[in-house]
Amino acid sequence: MIERIAIFGTGLLGTSVGLALRATGYKGSIVGWNRGAEGGQIALDAGAIDSLEQDGLKAGREAQVIVLATPVFSILDWMERLSGVLGPEHLVTDVGSTKGAITVAAGRLFNRPGQAAFLPGHPMAGKERGGASLGDAALFRGAVWLFTDDLSWERSPQAVALIKDWREWVMAMGSKTLDLEPTRHDELVAWVSHLPQFLATALSALLQQEVGDAPELKDVGGRGLREMTRLGASPFSMWRDIAHTNTEAIQKTLLALEQRLAHLRENLRTPELRDEFEQANQFRKDM
Amino acid sequence: MIERIAIFGTGLLGTSVGLALRATGYKGSIVGWNRGAEGGQIALDAGAIDSLEQDGLKAGREAQVIVLATPVFSILDWMERLSGVLGPEHLVTDVGSTKGAITVAAGRLFNRPGQAAFLPGHPMAGKERGGASLGDAALFRGAVWLFTDDLSWERSPQAVALIKDWREWVMAMGSKTLDLEPTRHDELVAWVSHLPQFLATALSALLQQEVGDAPELKDVGGRGLREMTRLGASPFSMWRDIAHTNTEAIQKTLLALEQRLAHLRENLRTPELRDEFEQANQFRKDM
Repeated sequence: MIERIAIFGTGLLGTSVGLALRATGYKGSIVGWNRGAEGGQIALDAGAIDSLEQDGLKAGREAQVIVLATPVFSILDWMERLSGVLGPEHLVTDVGSTKGAITVAAGRLFNRPGQAAFLPGHPMAGKERGGASLGDAALFRGAVWLFTDDLSWERSPQAVALIKDWREWVMAMGSKTLDLEPTRHDELVAWVSHLPQFLATALSALLQQEVGDAPELKDVGGRGLREMTRLGASPFSMWRDIAHTNTEAIQKTLLALEQRLAHLRENLRTPELRDEFEQANQFRKDM
Repeated sequence: MIERIAIFGTGLLGTSVGLALRATGYKGSIVGWNRGAEGGQIALDAGAIDSLEQDGLKAGREAQVIVLATPVFSILDWMERLSGVLGPEHLVTDVGSTKGAITVAAGRLFNRPGQAAFLPGHPMAGKERGGASLGDAALFRGAVWLFTDDLSWERSPQAVALIKDWREWVMAMGSKTLDLEPTRHDELVAWVSHLPQFLATALSALLQQEVGDAPELKDVGGRGLREMTRLGASPFSMWRDIAHTNTEAIQKTLLALEQRLAHLRENLRTPELRDEFEQANQFRKDM
């Protein structure tokens, strides 16, 4: 089935996809394209890709499956460029963190007779830092790999077969797949992924300002502080496109949390505080 | 030196103190007092205490060192009661999470000629759940044990020797000791301990309300979500007294975070977002 894969963007996710494919027995070729030479070389040295290609369009044309693993705006850019050179024998998929704009573009540029297929995907896996050097064959083990596919899209039999095969490789990498409607996807990840990230960023930035120069700080803070700020190490480059492409959903979650914190602040000495703890306890019960 | 210790409150901290003392070679006796029979029995069975005493005042009178390991209001209550029956041959210390009210009471009820000594303490160690069954001889290893002692207090030579000995046991348990002024203590722990806790509680409670019934939720949320909500499992009973005795400092940190989140929410698409990430990155640099 799938014998030629191109991975665009050999950062943490792209490199991990290559390593995970190899670790689970994929025998075909994997070509990589990367914006920076260094990250491409690291992925090559790690065995995540067999070769590096400077010409992305050539790499895409020669592959059966193209995995877009760049930030979201770059994914959208590659979708535009690749749609002009690919045909119904190709499947393009991605690992982008927001799915609204990508799924709209997938319906506009792909998934019509004579065109390549596009399967929007999003593995819920990552680390607080990116980069090829952190690539990990086990990154997707136990994770959920979300898809926001649209069953009304028209696809060639080859594309349907490639999609089936790609989903099987995803499961072979250790992920559970789950299909969501794209708007629902973006709302849900705003709550469970983007809000925790922006919260950790705001908390870490605030603590840096307020107590960052206290010499006793690093000693005094315990495991709770370390955990609540770990995501504060996430680089802006990994989150800029997410902030831009899921702005409204994220704003809604941030506003709700601001109100919740204000409510808690006003009730530190009232019985409402007990209710808040009990509701929080409830959330953690099955985690 | 110290041959008789009484631990008041055999919850997570009290039980861990007993276990840690034994693990580091303390050979004297340890008597326990606990409000509930069950927690006392668990600490006894675990070897954290040698015997249980129903009469706290008797346990206190017969010990050289009394470790108050109950919630803060109960510590304040025991300080009142014990101050009437103890003398200059006794040292009382505590492990309470806020130190303002306790240190004021220590100056009023103890640390004068003819009275027992009181050394206000606070090990920065804990778990998101309490209880004797979670007691852990290694809980204080690598932690910082804060003291808010006042060098102007007058103490008997016996008390001074007992304080020196107790501080050595604290270090033997694996903790680094640090002395802070009590107001500074309460402000600092509001930032690095109380704010992270109330934030995790508010986030968990909000998520329970917004997505708690989404069947895909537990699957989709990754490590970040689990970490950012772990403290959401903390019981109200462990935090009620902290909220009551450090209210103003906690309110200040919550308000600052609300404002920070609003700033971030308004700048998801502006260059300000980069600054926020960079400041957060800075905080994490040395952790």
